[in-house]
Amino acid sequence: TLAAPAIAQEKPKLNWRMTSSFPKSLDTLFGTGDLVARYVREATDGQFDIQQFAAGEIVPGGQALDAVMSGTVEMTHTASYYYWGKDPTYALGTAVPFGLNARQMNAWFYQGGGNDLLNEFYGKNGIFALPCGNTGAQMGGWYRKEINTVDDLKGLKLRIAGLAGRVVEKLGVVPQQIAASDVYASLERGTLDATEFVGPYDDEKLGLYKVAKYYYYPAWWEGGASLHVMIAKDKWDSLPKTYQSILTAACQAANGAMLADYDYKNPAAIARLVRAGAQLRPFSQEILQASFNAAKETHAEISSQNADFKKIFDSQTAFKRDAYLWAQLSEYTFDTFMMIQQRNNAL
Amino acid sequence: TLAAPAIAQEKPKLNWRMTSSFPKSLDTLFGTGDLVARYVREATDGQFDIQQFAAGEIVPGGQALDAVMSGTVEMTHTASYYYWGKDPTYALGTAVPFGLNARQMNAWFYQGGGNDLLNEFYGKNGIFALPCGNTGAQMGGWYRKEINTVDDLKGLKLRIAGLAGRVVEKLGVVPQQIAASDVYASLERGTLDATEFVGPYDDEKLGLYKVAKYYYYPAWWEGGASLHVMIAKDKWDSLPKTYQSILTAACQAANGAMLADYDYKNPAAIARLVRAGAQLRPFSQEILQASFNAAKETHAEISSQNADFKKIFDSQTAFKRDAYLWAQLSEYTFDTFMMIQQRNNAL
Repeated sequence: TLAAPAIAQEKPKLNWRMTSSFPKSLDTLFGTGDLVARYVREATDGQFDIQQFAAGEIVPGGQALDAVMSGTVEMTHTASYYYWGKDPTYALGTAVPFGLNARQMNAWFYQGGGNDLLNEFYGKNGIFALPCGNTGAQMGGWYRKEINTVDDLKGLKLRIAGLAGRVVEKLGVVPQQIAASDVYASLERGTLDATEFVGPYDDEKLGLYKVAKYYYYPAWWEGGASLHVMIAKDKWDSLPKTYQSILTAACQAANGAMLADYDYKNPAAIARLVRAGAQLRPFSQEILQASFNAAKETHAEISSQNADFKKIFDSQTAFKRDAYLWAQLSEYTFDTFMMIQQRNNAL
Repeated sequence: TLAAPAIAQEKPKLNWRMTSSFPKSLDTLFGTGDLVARYVREATDGQFDIQQFAAGEIVPGGQALDAVMSGTVEMTHTASYYYWGKDPTYALGTAVPFGLNARQMNAWFYQGGGNDLLNEFYGKNGIFALPCGNTGAQMGGWYRKEINTVDDLKGLKLRIAGLAGRVVEKLGVVPQQIAASDVYASLERGTLDATEFVGPYDDEKLGLYKVAKYYYYPAWWEGGASLHVMIAKDKWDSLPKTYQSILTAACQAANGAMLADYDYKNPAAIARLVRAGAQLRPFSQEILQASFNAAKETHAEISSQNADFKKIFDSQTAFKRDAYLWAQLSEYTFDTFMMIQQRNNAL
């Protein structure tokens, strides 16, 4: 038949390498990359083979995008905001303080033109990106002592990165950059007062409740942190349309799969952490309000200096205003009622 | 080469028909089926071709599953709970009163064994199903007059179907089954007092605010209604593994896409509806509490008579208890703070 050779031509054998920003031990994160690779491999009968490497195997996790830019690997599974030092606009792909929640990020990405806006920016840097995973609202981290007022933040040595670090500096916090492997010992010695990480399921693995038992919420700097698959744009452009579509669908499937994974694993993990001694604490309204004000200042400062940031941030903000009006109705009222029943042990 | 004929053999030409339970005018719903078909078509270079038909083109929307069971079509995009009359267990695939919200449904489907549990049940009826779309928490519908107390529900002619209909009957509501095309006229004449439908974006198209202006929330019977692609099991089993994987990824991608679509379109729609005269009303705590109690009774009654229902309902309920404990922390506190800022016009 004529069909067979035609199909074969459109299915070139490709072996790509995807460097992850995450270690294999963070299975929700690393597993998301594996799911993308599996869907692509299965859809192409193994012709398009993406091999994922853990952070550190090829390059450290924080340099994953650089490895794509330099041509060392074809793609990465990473968090865009790791690269905010190159340009703060990168932060908008993942999360900014008091930004969109997970569902709102997806709405903005897929329906609100967010993907296209981001790819305009990424494209200037030789990158094409697809959303691929969301953690949901993260926890605010582990603190050696209680933090009740803005005064309690003064001089606090908090391990926190990115835009959030710049925001908390305005409140007197001294942001720290310490390798994850040194965090436990630093908290134990008291050379570090607090650290933020992800949420219960990931945090549990670090055992931090033993050295910093106050577990605050929410991470107002990560209301719904999104990950991306980032691909060298010339490599993406060279793919057959079939492979582009397969990879797009795989990332969109994995995007939801990761959130589902966290949403399933976090409830059991928070219960275990509390049994182990973690003390849950909400940030006070005073701290949230001061942080919100500092974040608005920071966003305005960057917007005044960076047109790419301003354009994308303004798009997110416009949607955020509408989205949080709508969210107050059915979604919030339903959840609130269900939480009351949960507290009453009536579910 | 050897590769070409091998690939061709594994890519048989298939033309399948998918009957939708939805009209083309409900573009978020019908569009989700189109996205599945497009991803599958593109991934297979058109070899696996799924053609979607709107409700009524082959069979009415409520008979879509029957068309699969009888072999008229290979598959459908539908809501499992439409078929609760065959067996109430079908309701658990979509939504039950005071059930899981959208993110929790996905967590339970993909990580909590929910898909497998449902497919055990569906399999007994010759069906294999994949989750494919979620509406988020729906609105409680349109009412000609205000409903404040349980007494106000007595004798209320409310268009509502399924398990929810059985629940509200316990509160004195008289559930009505009226074709969608007759709803507007029935409300205008007063032969119908109220109707539930979906949410702002879909409801807007019916123009019901002109004849029943009180728009209540939330639809406690649909905190996160999930749709499914349902396939004749023998047809599914006969697919090459490659096609099975492609269809699985396509449905998982479309599952998130539909929620993102609603989450993007509902905020603008609710604003337009309010400008047009819709009066927003939350259900009172008295009504919610009475409905919750009636729902628990109903679930217990069905569980006592139906082992399939009990097994799946118990799995959802166990997860629901943990999930709503965890949801109170970061997610809810973040959203609450953002809603306060929204109301203060500070976002």
